[in-house]
Amino acid sequence: MRAAVMRNRQLVVADVPPPDPGPGEVLVKTLACGICGSDLHALRHAEQFVAASRRAGNQFAMDLSRDVVMGHEFCAEIVEHGPGTRKTLPRGARVCSRPGLVRADRRITVGYSNDTPGGYAEYMRLTEALLLPVPPDLATDHAALTEPMAVGVHAVAKAHLSPDDAPLVIGCGPVGLAVIAALRLAGARPIVAADFSARRRELAAALGADHVVDPARTTPWQSWYEVAVWRDPARAPVLPPWMPGPALRPAVVFECVGVPGVLDQIMAAAPRASRIVVVGVCMEADTIYPMLGISKELALQFVLGYTPEEFAATLGHIAREAIPVAPLVTGRVGLDGVAGAFEALASPERHAKILVEPWRA
Amino acid sequence: MRAAVMRNRQLVVADVPPPDPGPGEVLVKTLACGICGSDLHALRHAEQFVAASRRAGNQFAMDLSRDVVMGHEFCAEIVEHGPGTRKTLPRGARVCSRPGLVRADRRITVGYSNDTPGGYAEYMRLTEALLLPVPPDLATDHAALTEPMAVGVHAVAKAHLSPDDAPLVIGCGPVGLAVIAALRLAGARPIVAADFSARRRELAAALGADHVVDPARTTPWQSWYEVAVWRDPARAPVLPPWMPGPALRPAVVFECVGVPGVLDQIMAAAPRASRIVVVGVCMEADTIYPMLGISKELALQFVLGYTPEEFAATLGHIAREAIPVAPLVTGRVGLDGVAGAFEALASPERHAKILVEPWRA
Repeated sequence: MRAAVMRNRQLVVADVPPPDPGPGEVLVKTLACGICGSDLHALRHAEQFVAASRRAGNQFAMDLSRDVVMGHEFCAEIVEHGPGTRKTLPRGARVCSRPGLVRADRRITVGYSNDTPGGYAEYMRLTEALLLPVPPDLATDHAALTEPMAVGVHAVAKAHLSPDDAPLVIGCGPVGLAVIAALRLAGARPIVAADFSARRRELAAALGADHVVDPARTTPWQSWYEVAVWRDPARAPVLPPWMPGPALRPAVVFECVGVPGVLDQIMAAAPRASRIVVVGVCMEADTIYPMLGISKELALQFVLGYTPEEFAATLGHIAREAIPVAPLVTGRVGLDGVAGAFEALASPERHAKILVEPWRA
Repeated sequence: MRAAVMRNRQLVVADVPPPDPGPGEVLVKTLACGICGSDLHALRHAEQFVAASRRAGNQFAMDLSRDVVMGHEFCAEIVEHGPGTRKTLPRGARVCSRPGLVRADRRITVGYSNDTPGGYAEYMRLTEALLLPVPPDLATDHAALTEPMAVGVHAVAKAHLSPDDAPLVIGCGPVGLAVIAALRLAGARPIVAADFSARRRELAAALGADHVVDPARTTPWQSWYEVAVWRDPARAPVLPPWMPGPALRPAVVFECVGVPGVLDQIMAAAPRASRIVVVGVCMEADTIYPMLGISKELALQFVLGYTPEEFAATLGHIAREAIPVAPLVTGRVGLDGVAGAFEALASPERHAKILVEPWRA
């Protein structure tokens, strides 16, 4: 089958053996697969990506001397049921799945493995028990966005928001946009979101941000201060006379950039007792000043992925348009266009999510 | 009055003007004042200490070109009531207090201020409303340990322990020992604690640690794994077949070292979903690998100080010997001995807490 393969730190289109579904697995045809920022990172900084993953417990540990077919944000169609399957969903059914093969003895991450291809290939194999049927009225493109949107749903769930919390989203790439959509869904408002890119700020507003900020013009915190003042003074805490007012709602900051230095900036600017949810995946070393965290009693919650329930719920949210994903799809390419799409995604002004359609001419 | 003064980055004994109690303040005679690790840091790395404090919002911002009398862990005796005081506690009463002056327009940190002396002086002024009477049967030395012990009580409170959590204390200096005592008080057991110093491990056991580890011989995590296995298999979660067993109780790690690199070590070794409470005060830059936190969904809670309620409760715990502070006092010096005590505290084998008794001959 044809696939866009990571081989010798390059993306090349090649013929590779199609996967053979094992017990409890199905063979699927990839209909659409989003390109994730982590894939860009895995290609450009492959050694670092693998080293970081190994140190963290092997989750994405690949042998870089062997082929890897990436792609973990997909919608696919069942082609063949492997041995020992229940066949609850028929051949031809459109499905989404968390990108993991659950085997008797181990799990394999689909999209970062030498042993099974991800969605930048004509075919994949998936674990039948993880398959979710795509509702008939839902576009394939939109179903493929379940995975990245579930990341936002999970991050917001891990924030354990109370009705008083005032959110701030730093970075409006796909991760930040997913967080904004999930915040809106959770009813956490107003949502302040910041990004240097005008295009991304437009998308942030489309996904549900109430206030968008260009950090080149003004600090995101200024906008946050303005909206974090308690609207109902009866609910605001009484401040002692030595504390400068007005009283502000608790800050919950979502770090969705994933670049060294951003966490330090957030820790320096955040008010006392802020909670910082780290969603952006920074694979490099990062410098923090613990004293900033200590003197303000900050809390950091690092998050990754989603639960099975969150993934399934997200597909439902997208189907009923409670998460509006249409604005996110900014491009579509065939396998020959994957390498170019990786380049194009470097510019935040042009693209949010590019979908790979392996069967596209 | 006589005081041990931080002047030109040195500790010198000098005559300084005695403080004049303002409205709502009392003049007290310092009976005993513990030397805190932060004081050592403030003396040795004064610029860094002040810069870190300023960036974090000015809490301990001092003008280093002017005198500072440090000392914030004290027991004192009321000498004179200032104007507008209620005189609920009489002259001669022994008192403890959080180290802060609460004024109409601002708060002053006692012990890190150019404007009011801390406990390395014969006299201090304190805010009457913050004074707590020392129970008659409680030794002055032990009452002086209220402040550092309250730090442990607060850290454990901020950990929001559940009965299933298995604690691990990294570092058994005064901060780690306070955490161990507070964990014991909270009924969180078994307590695993690690320190390179044999003397400190002895103290850790005396304060309530169930297992003490020398990290030079074995990783603290090995001991933690052994005790974190569920004793009652009926309470343990069922692991999927691909996950290596046995199931472990959730880890809550207390970082009580405050030296760059320790946080990274903890983040690298901690199991998935661990909570890390950062109690040790690291004033330098520190390097972390966010990927470690992300892939294991770690949570970091930075903590500082204590609430008024926790401070008062701690004095009670010490009075009824629920927190056994006697083993902690390893030395007593007069004002002339303060500079030497700062040197001596560099060796973990000799000292835990040295008390300054400004009236000692």
